[in-house]
Amino acid sequence: MSIFSEKLGKIAQENESRIVLALDLSLSSKEKDFKKKLLEKAQKVLNDVRDHVAGIKINFQLLLPLGLFDELRFLIQTTTSYGIPLIMDCKLNDVEHTNEWTARHIFDAGFGALIANPFVGFRGGLDSVFSVAEEYGGGVILLVYMSHSGADEGYGQRVIYENDFRWQYEVFAEKAKSWGAEGVVVGATQPKIIERVSQILDGKIPIFSPGIGFQGGLISEAFRAGTSYAIVGRTIYQSENPKKSAKEIKDKINEVIR
Amino acid sequence: MSIFSEKLGKIAQENESRIVLALDLSLSSKEKDFKKKLLEKAQKVLNDVRDHVAGIKINFQLLLPLGLFDELRFLIQTTTSYGIPLIMDCKLNDVEHTNEWTARHIFDAGFGALIANPFVGFRGGLDSVFSVAEEYGGGVILLVYMSHSGADEGYGQRVIYENDFRWQYEVFAEKAKSWGAEGVVVGATQPKIIERVSQILDGKIPIFSPGIGFQGGLISEAFRAGTSYAIVGRTIYQSENPKKSAKEIKDKINEVIR
Repeated sequence: MSIFSEKLGKIAQENESRIVLALDLSLSSKEKDFKKKLLEKAQKVLNDVRDHVAGIKINFQLLLPLGLFDELRFLIQTTTSYGIPLIMDCKLNDVEHTNEWTARHIFDAGFGALIANPFVGFRGGLDSVFSVAEEYGGGVILLVYMSHSGADEGYGQRVIYENDFRWQYEVFAEKAKSWGAEGVVVGATQPKIIERVSQILDGKIPIFSPGIGFQGGLISEAFRAGTSYAIVGRTIYQSENPKKSAKEIKDKINEVIR
Repeated sequence: MSIFSEKLGKIAQENESRIVLALDLSLSSKEKDFKKKLLEKAQKVLNDVRDHVAGIKINFQLLLPLGLFDELRFLIQTTTSYGIPLIMDCKLNDVEHTNEWTARHIFDAGFGALIANPFVGFRGGLDSVFSVAEEYGGGVILLVYMSHSGADEGYGQRVIYENDFRWQYEVFAEKAKSWGAEGVVVGATQPKIIERVSQILDGKIPIFSPGIGFQGGLISEAFRAGTSYAIVGRTIYQSENPKKSAKEIKDKINEVIR
């Protein structure tokens, strides 16, 4: 088990929370002082919900304007000072040397895990990401089935794998096991797929499910099917009271898993 | 045709070059003044090769440290002042609202095109990228077959598509046509795949081929098979004399296409 997974499990227990907050705040770059405002907004939400989440997920909405080596540093420092693990949702899918460089800098910056797309393959693709992650005690979380409607085109396609007809997400779940992933992403909107992936993973790798709330996925269905952590974004950070919303979702999840 | 494609065609003609320079320079973030050094290095290579390339491709190696709204601005300004179109190689593969945000900021920053992964699908996935691109006169370039050895796992898999057995890259090439892509990426290491993709695209969408040089792809094989632009990185920027190397590759390509 990686340092990332240990930290995530520890905070999940302490905060009694299975929420990973997707801090996908966005602000137009044309707004005055938008970087400062964006950072302040992010820090505020973080402080509001710190006792009700298990992890924080950062995406391009913060990474591109705040920069891995600039303002984002402050947010990373605050988050890690709370002991909350950080996930970089870069959906990495490049060739070896670019992946290696990117992964190294993400872990160097203080992230505990990163999300990658298994479609790119292992040799000369994600192999370098898994080696770098091991070096840092970091985790690699693989996309197995995304939460948007068009996910059926790729993640839900029928493929031939080892001389057999399989669903793409089944192949990805098997790769997650054999490559040593510390998590997989399966959209909360697809409880049957969560159930199937959960069977393949045999409870050994946590399932992170986005799409609860704004994207329509239901907490009870997802967690009953095998979800370990809900990735929640807009339902929390766009709420009038992010703390209250996070607490409510956390309680609802705890009702289901008890 | 997008403004991006027009510019690319114009500079390709003026410079008699079918090279897109992959400016994937990297420098450790632990080195002193690494941002300044990285920017200077990038500017130097750019000035050296400006008469011998048709476009510039930027990846995470420059984006993460230099930041879309920070030092990278200077490089974008220099490149666009030379009339050379810029491609952001972010291999975008996220959900709608994140893709929309990312694409908008990339085009706002001055990029002419971005690279996306068609695997994510259209509905709630790349649809927003194509709409934003149209708004800006920008181009979307789709990955159809990458240049690393593990590309066969995903891009080279057999899938069922419209009740028929197909290669994944054939499906992607067809999607590139129907979605209105302004380019596709097919690794130079796979001339037979370039040929097949070229057939499907019917000469209507340019094929960009990375993997010439360090990754072993051959110029003559790729261009005879249907490549329109070679994406060249290390062979040029790691050369003792980038200008001379770019000129040599350019001449070699022109020999083949004449």
